[in-house]
Amino acid sequence: MTQSADARFLEQAQLLGYSFDGEIKIGGNYVPLVRDGHHFYVSGQIPRVGNTVVVTGAVGVEVSLVDAQKAAKVCVMRGLALLQRALGSLGHIQSVPRITVYVQSASTFTQQSEVADGASEVLFQVLGPQAGAHSRTSVGVLQLPKNAAVEIDLIASIWSN
Amino acid sequence: MTQSADARFLEQAQLLGYSFDGEIKIGGNYVPLVRDGHHFYVSGQIPRVGNTVVVTGAVGVEVSLVDAQKAAKVCVMRGLALLQRALGSLGHIQSVPRITVYVQSASTFTQQSEVADGASEVLFQVLGPQAGAHSRTSVGVLQLPKNAAVEIDLIASIWSN
Amino acid sequence: MTQSADARFLEQAQLLGYSFDGEIKIGGNYVPLVRDGHHFYVSGQIPRVGNTVVVTGAVGVEVSLVDAQKAAKVCVMRGLALLQRALGSLGHIQSVPRITVYVQSASTFTQQSEVADGASEVLFQVLGPQAGAHSRTSVGVLQLPKNAAVEIDLIASIWSN
Repeated sequence: MTQSADARFLEQAQLLGYSFDGEIKIGGNYVPLVRDGHHFYVSGQIPRVGNTVVVTGAVGVEVSLVDAQKAAKVCVMRGLALLQRALGSLGHIQSVPRITVYVQSASTFTQQSEVADGASEVLFQVLGPQAGAHSRTSVGVLQLPKNAAVEIDLIASIWSN
Repeated sequence: MTQSADARFLEQAQLLGYSFDGEIKIGGNYVPLVRDGHHFYVSGQIPRVGNTVVVTGAVGVEVSLVDAQKAAKVCVMRGLALLQRALGSLGHIQSVPRITVYVQSASTFTQQSEVADGASEVLFQVLGPQAGAHSRTSVGVLQLPKNAAVEIDLIASIWSN
Repeated sequence: MTQSADARFLEQAQLLGYSFDGEIKIGGNYVPLVRDGHHFYVSGQIPRVGNTVVVTGAVGVEVSLVDAQKAAKVCVMRGLALLQRALGSLGHIQSVPRITVYVQSASTFTQQSEVADGASEVLFQVLGPQAGAHSRTSVGVLQLPKNAAVEIDLIASIWSN
């Protein structure tokens, strides 16, 4: 990859058809990310662009797998946007030790891993195969804030020099 | 804030009408918190005071938002009580990189963030705006141990000197 | 305990009646574990042995508590198998700061902690009371990938010398 992570981030945003330039709004009395030494803990992100949650409802009934994957991509892009603002550039990210993917699921929907693949794809595309390699947990929950279809949190580590 | 974190902890306990002086009971074959270098991982806390889980049931149907927020406060107070015993004083806490808030939700209840605001308020009140700043993930689950309305786990970091 | 952690791992595998010698398959576009300094983040493990998820369905209705505990044991054994391959020996593990146990639950099933005790027992049996001591969060979710009854992720820390 000859492009920078920041250029690839912009490319992914264009592919999704959303801009992540505006305020990354969060819905409560906490902070969007916390620095802890060389780690950043990013709060749970729902697929909100501006004031709109762009994918809502239970996956498997109201939401298709493809739309749920798009929701997962938007969640991760929001997380990356927050990291980019905190760090100046996504090039400072060394690794993403963990992402947790919560999928609002119909009771018979068992493709949470496939939904999470949307998130994983963005991490690999933007950060590359080294920094973008991540461990992952995907589960199917009953509901999410604002009826979001997907919510994702993550931990990123940065280079120490 | 001129009071110490420990004094503010006591004040919050009095506001809630509960004492956290007794044993902090846990329900299984594990430990309530693990020290890992300068971090403490606190096990998932349900709103148990003594032997009683004080808020049970699904939020949105059996449990009101206000009661769920109170449950979230009790969960965090239990976590802080455990940290206070391990550390001697809550003044040693540098930050709370992550809390995860699991809300036993009715299928149409989408205010998990508002429930979690109860937990966030306690952290800010007791630890202050610096150490109490935390990243947060809130999700709506189908059930929780002992029919608890809320369960919260957290990671705290301590000052290294 | 005079046996090594690796010998005790083999013993637990024999008690469960499963071999963890083969490939530890994962179901998506991510990595099974990520090293982060002295920590390893292990991705969410379902009770898959080879190509088969050995315990599926909702605990409390389709799956008994005993079978769910067995599922939890298989999840942790998979995690330990991954760590053993990455480290050469389980003797390098210093502690397990966190495990999170997701139980696919019937809406009235509230013994998620008891399910998780299966996982905790394996950690204590294999790693011993020091390295096996862990913090734990157990929740009841609506669904899990591939209809698994249980999913568990964990963080392990290793000795720094």
